[in-house]
Amino acid sequence: MSKPTLDVLGIGNAIVDILVQTDEAFLNENGLIKGTMALVSSDDQWDLYEKTGQAIESSGGSAANTLAGVAALGSRAAFAGKVNKDQLGRVFGHDIRAASVTYETKMSIDGAPTATCLVLITPDGQRTMQTFLGACVEFSVEDLDIEQIQSAKVVYLEGYLWDPEPAREAFFKAAEIAHEAGRKVALSLSDPFCVDRHREGFLAFIEEHVDILFANEDEILSLYRLDDFESVAKRIQGVVEIAALTRSEKGSVIVTADAITPVPTRPVDKVVDTTGAGDAYAAGFLAAYTQGRDLTTAAVLGSLLASLIIQQIGARPSASAQDLLNQLDG
Amino acid sequence: MSKPTLDVLGIGNAIVDILVQTDEAFLNENGLIKGTMALVSSDDQWDLYEKTGQAIESSGGSAANTLAGVAALGSRAAFAGKVNKDQLGRVFGHDIRAASVTYETKMSIDGAPTATCLVLITPDGQRTMQTFLGACVEFSVEDLDIEQIQSAKVVYLEGYLWDPEPAREAFFKAAEIAHEAGRKVALSLSDPFCVDRHREGFLAFIEEHVDILFANEDEILSLYRLDDFESVAKRIQGVVEIAALTRSEKGSVIVTADAITPVPTRPVDKVVDTTGAGDAYAAGFLAAYTQGRDLTTAAVLGSLLASLIIQQIGARPSASAQDLLNQLDG
Repeated sequence: MSKPTLDVLGIGNAIVDILVQTDEAFLNENGLIKGTMALVSSDDQWDLYEKTGQAIESSGGSAANTLAGVAALGSRAAFAGKVNKDQLGRVFGHDIRAASVTYETKMSIDGAPTATCLVLITPDGQRTMQTFLGACVEFSVEDLDIEQIQSAKVVYLEGYLWDPEPAREAFFKAAEIAHEAGRKVALSLSDPFCVDRHREGFLAFIEEHVDILFANEDEILSLYRLDDFESVAKRIQGVVEIAALTRSEKGSVIVTADAITPVPTRPVDKVVDTTGAGDAYAAGFLAAYTQGRDLTTAAVLGSLLASLIIQQIGARPSASAQDLLNQLDG
Repeated sequence: MSKPTLDVLGIGNAIVDILVQTDEAFLNENGLIKGTMALVSSDDQWDLYEKTGQAIESSGGSAANTLAGVAALGSRAAFAGKVNKDQLGRVFGHDIRAASVTYETKMSIDGAPTATCLVLITPDGQRTMQTFLGACVEFSVEDLDIEQIQSAKVVYLEGYLWDPEPAREAFFKAAEIAHEAGRKVALSLSDPFCVDRHREGFLAFIEEHVDILFANEDEILSLYRLDDFESVAKRIQGVVEIAALTRSEKGSVIVTADAITPVPTRPVDKVVDTTGAGDAYAAGFLAAYTQGRDLTTAAVLGSLLASLIIQQIGARPSASAQDLLNQLDG
């Protein structure tokens, strides 16, 4: 087995976010459930977009955000996901490469446009998302770069990739290739509604293929249809090698075969926008993990990056992320 | 002559900004002159974009920003400018309408893509711009809505519109229609390099067609090739009905046939991004002017909106602009 030349390869939906500030009334008027992600058609997204205020556009995508964070923390990062060769596809490609993430997935030429996510940010910093998957539905096993998968210490998959059919197939194939090469497979459950859509599939996939599982409290409870955290932490114990369960301001809990370890975090002054908090946690955790740090340090770095992200607008870290590593060692 | 149903109609380049934070070294390495706007080809813009960090996209365009400000201050605003029917064209159209500005210019279908401006923001808040005009070069007299021009108290033209040939023709035509209807014509000189490119044309146009001229110190000095402010203020006196000359932290100077009146402004705590300071000044001034306020009040509101804009990233006001009117009356 050759030496890994990458720390983390992420596979996910390649999405450009349309960020707009709104209020609770707007969510109610349009029948939207705060804090969730819904899949919508291009037309439905457009109808809602037309009712919103001035927006800004910023590259997003859950795993893509995570890989940008991994790279910002000095680890070797790559991403695979599908965009169209349109203006927003160019924007996505520029931004992920500008974040020092290797990105080589072939652009779609004739198909659906690049995916967009309309992100409605309420004054409490919560985001409500309406995603049109666009070109993401074309990502398939043919887009997998086998050598790249074999070369990464961890292959990180986002749960959202379960939504587009051909990508789900690629999901399984990537996990298979990674394990054959002796690498780790990580999965993020993405959101409770995503878990709801694919519970049986996720359960089977996790049991068979996942080494490192990322989930927040709602997601892991939804996965096992349980309603208290202690039971679910015990339930996941031994199913995966490591489960990193995030609990918002309480920090996270690391579950391994031997132990269930809470790792608290410091409170933040003001939550501006929670977009990408989970993505950032996974980034901090994976950067530390692939740099050979212990699991508690990985959890601390995950929470630190998450707290940085929720105090700014947008889901990707600014250049100051590297300072977090210094905080760890200081 | 019928009663005006619009306060301000702006005609300008319809542009989406790509905003990126950078440093002085990057400008030097790429031979860019800080604080200026240069016209570039799509390829040259792309080459530079590839070297920049993660960016965000936000609707821009000088006159378009001004009209968004006019509307935010409660005046009736419309904008005319050309985009392509592509993703960024849709973004531009959404954002200007979301700012409560009427926008009905026909989209280009087959031509060049929607214009983009790569805005490089240095730590001192200065912006250096590389503009690819794209679909803007297709704006022509045929895009003028004669009734709309006749219905606006002020037709506001941006100097940048002098760059694309067919738009320049539309410029003259719009001024002619406005004056025949007894309306005012306002012009912004946009930037000293723009003045340099078109000095003779500007001088003739101003003398013949302009009632209200907006310029900062560098621009008005460049126009008359003079080097002290007092001389140039006297030089413009009587050439136009009103010249509103902005002087950064010194506020502005209002020149009329009878008087040259300095109107100071309050200093701001921290300059974040000067993009759109001049656009915002014109917005505040025109909103007050068309609401029948005196010129000093118009200058004060111009400076207030400009100081709001330079303390945020991006060139369009947030919802709080309306508060400025309360400050005036408070």
